[in-house]
Amino acid sequence: MAGGGAPETPAPGDAPGPVIVLVEPQLGENIGMAARAMLNCRLTELRLVKPRDGWPSDEATAAAAGADGVVEGARVFDTTADAVADLERVFATTARNRDMTQRILTPRQAGAEIRQFMADGNAKAGVLFGREAKGLKNDDLALCDAVVMAPVNPAFSSLNLAQAVFCIGYEWLLADLGDGPGEDGGGRLAMAKETRPANKAELRRLFEHLEKELDASGFLHVKEKRPVMVRNIRNMLQRAQLTEQEVRTLRGIITSLAGKRGR
Amino acid sequence: MAGGGAPETPAPGDAPGPVIVLVEPQLGENIGMAARAMLNCRLTELRLVKPRDGWPSDEATAAAAGADGVVEGARVFDTTADAVADLERVFATTARNRDMTQRILTPRQAGAEIRQFMADGNAKAGVLFGREAKGLKNDDLALCDAVVMAPVNPAFSSLNLAQAVFCIGYEWLLADLGDGPGEDGGGRLAMAKETRPANKAELRRLFEHLEKELDASGFLHVKEKRPVMVRNIRNMLQRAQLTEQEVRTLRGIITSLAGKRGR
Repeated sequence: MAGGGAPETPAPGDAPGPVIVLVEPQLGENIGMAARAMLNCRLTELRLVKPRDGWPSDEATAAAAGADGVVEGARVFDTTADAVADLERVFATTARNRDMTQRILTPRQAGAEIRQFMADGNAKAGVLFGREAKGLKNDDLALCDAVVMAPVNPAFSSLNLAQAVFCIGYEWLLADLGDGPGEDGGGRLAMAKETRPANKAELRRLFEHLEKELDASGFLHVKEKRPVMVRNIRNMLQRAQLTEQEVRTLRGIITSLAGKRGR
Repeated sequence: MAGGGAPETPAPGDAPGPVIVLVEPQLGENIGMAARAMLNCRLTELRLVKPRDGWPSDEATAAAAGADGVVEGARVFDTTADAVADLERVFATTARNRDMTQRILTPRQAGAEIRQFMADGNAKAGVLFGREAKGLKNDDLALCDAVVMAPVNPAFSSLNLAQAVFCIGYEWLLADLGDGPGEDGGGRLAMAKETRPANKAELRRLFEHLEKELDASGFLHVKEKRPVMVRNIRNMLQRAQLTEQEVRTLRGIITSLAGKRGR
């Protein structure tokens, strides 16, 4: 089922789509099926974080059923942080609520938000998918701006990986430009002209700067608590959808506050 | 990705769903994956017309990944006409325009129409899916009330069978459930259990605390710029939709960073 013949749905033209990031995918076949689902939805940029069975994969190419270009163009990364470093907005897909404070979107809302966010042709967004059955780790979620949960059968909610990719791609493809939640729901960020959203590499440097100072000041001195505290702090700052200018302001604040301490 | 945890979407309760009819499916694995996609979308009634590799199928059960009940309950028919005999409304999925006069719907329209049609609890509807790669025959289409075509990439429009089933099931599941992007804007915030959103008084004390320390550290020393800088900083923190717990964390950070400075 498919078809270019459904005339009431406007074609998205050459609108760029989000990057699809598969974190520690296990079976090459699933990667290939995800690539096929991507191309069904006009998505072409695939990234893989530590694919278990290595890369390239003949199974992936076979399962892609013609979406060879997506598979061949896939880039492989060692860490999720590296895979999202150049992205300015990252969404995490998850099957269950975590005990973390995060914005939660349906695929339809996420599709509209991504479409809106990328509308100017410069901003880059991505969507993370966890490994089969296990999903994303909390440390991966901490890199993300919002969580996407599909409102499917609560008694049988685990989607096949390609299915989850399709669900997001399909909603992105169908999202109406200019009529999404950003327009009237207060979701879109109006931004001072001279700045742009901070990318993940800039955020990461901010976090590392803050954590270094917090280590020095003793705030993070309880070893067992440190990972959770660091994740919570990153999570909270991440949620502010900081601009590049604001990241510089925050780093100035940290430097200023910590500046003379102990010197 | 999925989840019973997205509470803003009302459950469809016991609303009956359409029957899924796979016509001459080839691989047992695809039947199983379709069954899984069905149950993801609360659909449970599966019918098969002349499955090529026979029935029952171990491959189908394995690929169903837990949706065993759907596979075990599948009924097998010799002809499409037999498989739809008791249905009052039948939809055909197809990847391409046929030279036939038929009503064409998108999956979203079809989902809404099926939901509407079955609302009284008596009417039975079904959706036909053709065999992999080949699709439905014109004789099958002639049994149907409308044709469903997904508005996907016209240059790569062939969906995996389970994907096509999911697409219809998902749209049926979401039909009229208020998941439109306009409904609740930018999503909701999932929150760690033991906390609540910070109130404005708590935020104000946070801001004043930070500004006092930034005055002391010299960060805000340029008098003419101070009001704009203060506003920008408040703005940015405000945007994070902080919880009460996070406000306390931030105040701890400020105290810690500024702690020993100058003392």
